[in-house]
Amino acid sequence: MSLTVEQLWTAMLAEAEAFGRSEPVLASFYHASILNHGSFARALSFQIASKLGCDSVPAMLIRDVAAEVYVADPEVLASAVADICAHYDRDPACDNYGMPFLYFKGFQAIQGQRIAHWLWRQGRESLALFLQNRIATVFDVDIHPAARIGAGIMVDHATGVVIGETAVIGNNVSMLHSVTLGGCGSGRGPRHPQIDHGVLIAAGAKVLGNIRIGEGAKIAAGSVVLNAVAPHTTVAGVPARPVGTTSKDIPALNMDQQINGDG
Amino acid sequence: MSLTVEQLWTAMLAEAEAFGRSEPVLASFYHASILNHGSFARALSFQIASKLGCDSVPAMLIRDVAAEVYVADPEVLASAVADICAHYDRDPACDNYGMPFLYFKGFQAIQGQRIAHWLWRQGRESLALFLQNRIATVFDVDIHPAARIGAGIMVDHATGVVIGETAVIGNNVSMLHSVTLGGCGSGRGPRHPQIDHGVLIAAGAKVLGNIRIGEGAKIAAGSVVLNAVAPHTTVAGVPARPVGTTSKDIPALNMDQQINGDG
Amino acid sequence: MSLTVEQLWTAMLAEAEAFGRSEPVLASFYHASILNHGSFARALSFQIASKLGCDSVPAMLIRDVAAEVYVADPEVLASAVADICAHYDRDPACDNYGMPFLYFKGFQAIQGQRIAHWLWRQGRESLALFLQNRIATVFDVDIHPAARIGAGIMVDHATGVVIGETAVIGNNVSMLHSVTLGGCGSGRGPRHPQIDHGVLIAAGAKVLGNIRIGEGAKIAAGSVVLNAVAPHTTVAGVPARPVGTTSKDIPALNMDQQINGDG
Amino acid sequence: MSLTVEQLWTAMLAEAEAFGRSEPVLASFYHASILNHGSFARALSFQIASKLGCDSVPAMLIRDVAAEVYVADPEVLASAVADICAHYDRDPACDNYGMPFLYFKGFQAIQGQRIAHWLWRQGRESLALFLQNRIATVFDVDIHPAARIGAGIMVDHATGVVIGETAVIGNNVSMLHSVTLGGCGSGRGPRHPQIDHGVLIAAGAKVLGNIRIGEGAKIAAGSVVLNAVAPHTTVAGVPARPVGTTSKDIPALNMDQQINGDG
Amino acid sequence: MSLTVEQLWTAMLAEAEAFGRSEPVLASFYHASILNHGSFARALSFQIASKLGCDSVPAMLIRDVAAEVYVADPEVLASAVADICAHYDRDPACDNYGMPFLYFKGFQAIQGQRIAHWLWRQGRESLALFLQNRIATVFDVDIHPAARIGAGIMVDHATGVVIGETAVIGNNVSMLHSVTLGGCGSGRGPRHPQIDHGVLIAAGAKVLGNIRIGEGAKIAAGSVVLNAVAPHTTVAGVPARPVGTTSKDIPALNMDQQINGDG
Amino acid sequence: MSLTVEQLWTAMLAEAEAFGRSEPVLASFYHASILNHGSFARALSFQIASKLGCDSVPAMLIRDVAAEVYVADPEVLASAVADICAHYDRDPACDNYGMPFLYFKGFQAIQGQRIAHWLWRQGRESLALFLQNRIATVFDVDIHPAARIGAGIMVDHATGVVIGETAVIGNNVSMLHSVTLGGCGSGRGPRHPQIDHGVLIAAGAKVLGNIRIGEGAKIAAGSVVLNAVAPHTTVAGVPARPVGTTSKDIPALNMDQQINGDG
Repeated sequence: MSLTVEQLWTAMLAEAEAFGRSEPVLASFYHASILNHGSFARALSFQIASKLGCDSVPAMLIRDVAAEVYVADPEVLASAVADICAHYDRDPACDNYGMPFLYFKGFQAIQGQRIAHWLWRQGRESLALFLQNRIATVFDVDIHPAARIGAGIMVDHATGVVIGETAVIGNNVSMLHSVTLGGCGSGRGPRHPQIDHGVLIAAGAKVLGNIRIGEGAKIAAGSVVLNAVAPHTTVAGVPARPVGTTSKDIPALNMDQQINGDG
Repeated sequence: MSLTVEQLWTAMLAEAEAFGRSEPVLASFYHASILNHGSFARALSFQIASKLGCDSVPAMLIRDVAAEVYVADPEVLASAVADICAHYDRDPACDNYGMPFLYFKGFQAIQGQRIAHWLWRQGRESLALFLQNRIATVFDVDIHPAARIGAGIMVDHATGVVIGETAVIGNNVSMLHSVTLGGCGSGRGPRHPQIDHGVLIAAGAKVLGNIRIGEGAKIAAGSVVLNAVAPHTTVAGVPARPVGTTSKDIPALNMDQQINGDG
Repeated sequence: MSLTVEQLWTAMLAEAEAFGRSEPVLASFYHASILNHGSFARALSFQIASKLGCDSVPAMLIRDVAAEVYVADPEVLASAVADICAHYDRDPACDNYGMPFLYFKGFQAIQGQRIAHWLWRQGRESLALFLQNRIATVFDVDIHPAARIGAGIMVDHATGVVIGETAVIGNNVSMLHSVTLGGCGSGRGPRHPQIDHGVLIAAGAKVLGNIRIGEGAKIAAGSVVLNAVAPHTTVAGVPARPVGTTSKDIPALNMDQQINGDG
Repeated sequence: MSLTVEQLWTAMLAEAEAFGRSEPVLASFYHASILNHGSFARALSFQIASKLGCDSVPAMLIRDVAAEVYVADPEVLASAVADICAHYDRDPACDNYGMPFLYFKGFQAIQGQRIAHWLWRQGRESLALFLQNRIATVFDVDIHPAARIGAGIMVDHATGVVIGETAVIGNNVSMLHSVTLGGCGSGRGPRHPQIDHGVLIAAGAKVLGNIRIGEGAKIAAGSVVLNAVAPHTTVAGVPARPVGTTSKDIPALNMDQQINGDG
Repeated sequence: MSLTVEQLWTAMLAEAEAFGRSEPVLASFYHASILNHGSFARALSFQIASKLGCDSVPAMLIRDVAAEVYVADPEVLASAVADICAHYDRDPACDNYGMPFLYFKGFQAIQGQRIAHWLWRQGRESLALFLQNRIATVFDVDIHPAARIGAGIMVDHATGVVIGETAVIGNNVSMLHSVTLGGCGSGRGPRHPQIDHGVLIAAGAKVLGNIRIGEGAKIAAGSVVLNAVAPHTTVAGVPARPVGTTSKDIPALNMDQQINGDG
Repeated sequence: MSLTVEQLWTAMLAEAEAFGRSEPVLASFYHASILNHGSFARALSFQIASKLGCDSVPAMLIRDVAAEVYVADPEVLASAVADICAHYDRDPACDNYGMPFLYFKGFQAIQGQRIAHWLWRQGRESLALFLQNRIATVFDVDIHPAARIGAGIMVDHATGVVIGETAVIGNNVSMLHSVTLGGCGSGRGPRHPQIDHGVLIAAGAKVLGNIRIGEGAKIAAGSVVLNAVAPHTTVAGVPARPVGTTSKDIPALNMDQQINGDG
């Protein structure tokens, strides 16, 4: 399900209003995080900045950078909306839009990387690398700022995820904690995977090298993938081998980590 | 070995006294964490609160909640005692009771989840989810507050452990870092594993879906378990297959991650 | 490539000067971290202390301990130099010496452990264990202070690495995130692996028990190693089995996580 | 007007409820500070501890001490109630009971001193002096822990107030910022003033030496008092001289800093 | 000397650039505080927020309020510009525009009060009082949010200044530390002084009650003023009496705390 | 009484040992502040840095500056020793050497200014002014870094003290809180007082302009001094006038704020 920024924001405001009433311990938290802001963009910059701010680079300064990014490249904001919808649609334990926004390390890490990526493309590599370190420290998710990441991404649980410099991730990809999109070899050229649209990468899977994981493929938990995977193919094992064809067009959407008879 | 709350507390006081004398840098740390308190319950609420407190929800407020839980449900405190004994008995590197209490992220995360679980059952889901996020951020352990967890639990090293919403864990279970008790499918009903008494789940193993791991079973390191495991059975591999019968009644107790000839 | 302390320090100063000019947001960060110090030793003690300091043990106190270690045992400092060079030489994404020093959790965790290890050998076990906890909390890397670790170590990405009490690691070893050097059995004697010089342990591999991994061996990603590995041998799988001979003398140096035909 | 603890607490709860509704930015602040607590004593210990806690002595530890004091000596709590009423009754800018409790440095400093004074009388002089320093740092009010202070005290604005070791202050005394009750001479015996009931000491007045300020006296702003003052007498000037008889029985109650014809 | 916002901002940018180059320890401080911002308004909201932010109300939230104020009422910003010029013109120890902006507690406290005053007028009295407490805690300056304060104000050194609820201060007024504009009586109506344009109030002077201090008057250090003062009159003493006519039209401008023969 | 650095340090170590034993809450505080250090110089740099450190300039960096000062100019350290002895000798409430070192804002502010003064003389005016602001914020004492201050200085209670740019203070001077050594006129030349050896300036006194206060003079509390004071003369009043000859050679030593018949 896809929402516009406005639809999402309206829903988040209603949720926060209700939650704040029912749990007064958190009333100001909902207010400061969501209700106090005039737009989703302002709330998101507040949220990311409050997580990544530190002694050396205060939150307010990071917020200014984020705000600048959201104006300069509206795609970044639209991708964040799609990411929230991805969690809401795919994660049975997520029954409101505020959850990824407020709590999910994977969502927050991806939004942090989107800021760092924009800085990287502007040639501000030092600050981008600084943010990569902050994201790795705060969220335990290590994504190189140069990695290119699509919209509608869900990184569930997220602890231990590593995504390398030349990785490319399409839209509507789901992955779980402890997934690695790692490199091979020591050249500076492309050496990390390309993940096409709709791929599901289950917990702990490692995808290594400049290989392409085709659209709608599924990688089973704990797999180690060293070769390209054809579209709509399920692979499993160490090393991973094809075990069937995915039963769904877009495995990322239903998050079935099982490998049933039909793959 | 099982201690009463009083026996454990007496032992912890003696240890802290001795350690504080031998390392003056930490004297006040031992005092504030242990010696200053009139009971194990008060020390534990202090410890959990000092870890999980943050700008939005101050430590003193979390401490009040924890204290309320320990009065309302003495089982929560008794389980904490059993958890400490589990570390002391099973981990060769742990030669005093204060170590899990003061230092082990797995012990502290489990105690945090016990508070969140009590809140969840009281219908205070917002605060329970807030605590889940704090636990995931501080300890890198992501346990849904709805998960039901027994006593005598050891989560060794703990980084990257993920336990889903409908998981059920029996008594005297041991698991190591990077273990996943994950879900399959997208319904809201039971979709995570049930782990019976005495099971050992070695490092990095992923147990996925609404399957039952029978009493005294052993899951080898790095395994991906997609099907039920019979009691006292050792499974290994990706995907995991039975490789023998466990040589001990309760594999969780001796923490042997090896898979010997006898499983 | 091996640098002297002085050569490294000269290079780091030049880098920091340039980066500070190009990114004024970080100018003071570079100054406080690098340019402000009269020597590499002083900068390193500042860096480690600023990461590990906390309410109970302030940064300045940790810095004094670190400074004492660097004077008492110059090998510790020389190892740090070799560790930085290891990252610079082996990681294509690392094109300056400041990156591991300022940002890489693996490098910083190893330097923290070197301090804790020195304390452990002095009989100050309580403070060593305190630091282990701080390192595990801040960097998500859990290394027992008793573990013996050589020089020229690269722990890439680092999240989730666990290294046990009796582990021994030689020089020029590379490992990636989520690697475990774990124990078996419950005695206090040697129960963790010995990793010889030049070994490469790829992401997520688990090496368990008192086994020896021979010089120049390579352990593939996601492997679970339960038996000794001969020198210059590549092993893979769950459980790991030999799959070839390493094509390079020192696999740690080129970081090829792939398992090509030649192993 | 005098309230019982229960009456005050009921009024504070109603206020906080209303304020939290009208200003959501502060809803959790009111909740954490007032609404969340089961009694005035618990709220007060939370409030004092949250102000005085620091790295060396965490808030939770100070809270335990305060809670112990309120049980051991109920007069301390009753005095706090009388202090709040004093502000409410005497300060036109204070139109609710929460204001002194939440915001007024004078009220908070006095409550901190009451804790320190109890510790001092228990022979815990070191901790009492530590708290004196915290109070002086946080509230800019320097009161020796040995000073004996009555109930119904209002220290308005409070910055710069100094009260020495052997000072004695009766009930229902009002003083303003920058007032000094200072010592003379260098012996350890009584060398600070005794302030009897109902005295008003206006802004910036200095009362020096072991002299007695009689019941219901009034000391004009900026005065320097070096000699005893008779009851119900107004003094003014540098040095202070009698300028009339106070027009009210208890000048502390109406806070008239003016010196009218009638004194 | 009066500058436009743009002229001031241009000057501040040039200064910060130069200072950052000459003192690299502070380079990022100058950058984060001044150089990083696109306008004086954004820099000022950053500065005030970074001082007044706290656990209960984070800096970013205060910044949003400040930014809203500067848009809603441009006079607030213009007054801040005039305040900086006042310090620059009148304080011999202040030789650049950044000093009051970055360092002077009096300037920062006044800007904080201007925000609180705007909130007060909007009926957000709770948040206004919260800010009053923050300002009193951080800067040791206690100004009621209802006080009305003109432009071109210099509060030098500032510690201990107290300004009451119904005080009114004109333009181009100078005062020093420990000055009180205090109340008399206990009604809610006007009970604090009205200070007309160009008045100088020297260190420690107390002006009490609903009295008018005429344009261009001068109040000597340590005076206690209980009666109205005619324009261009110098008063001194406890209580203060006229001692002459001010030699300058606007005593606030040359800050002469002396009382020369000519007053 | 004058101690050498070594004598003072030996005494402080013995005190801290005893206090740490009697109050375990503070054991680590005494250890970190005093016992852990190899010399008085190292302990003092730790103490000042831990007070003045902040987000923009971390404590460790300030400590390095302080350490550099103590080596470059041993007089700074010797003056600190004399200052501690001044408090010990003159303040009846101070019965151990650790009190000024650990707790007294006046002592700590003076030591901070000595660092800032050294930086000022090195031409590092920006950092000196930054420290002036930190000192004013943390200790409520505002001393310009250019002021020249002798040894054996006691600033008792200290809140609100202001000392201007061209002030000069001799040895063995005592002053109390709220004292001002203020300027007159607007030129950049000498415009603040010169205080000769042994002068006592009682609480709240204001000394204004380029005037000389002769050796052994005494200024009564609340006085406003606008003219030079002859040696061994007591002045009092607003404005201050001679009221006698000081009964002691060095009034600063016995701290008698009274003005007896003999002055």
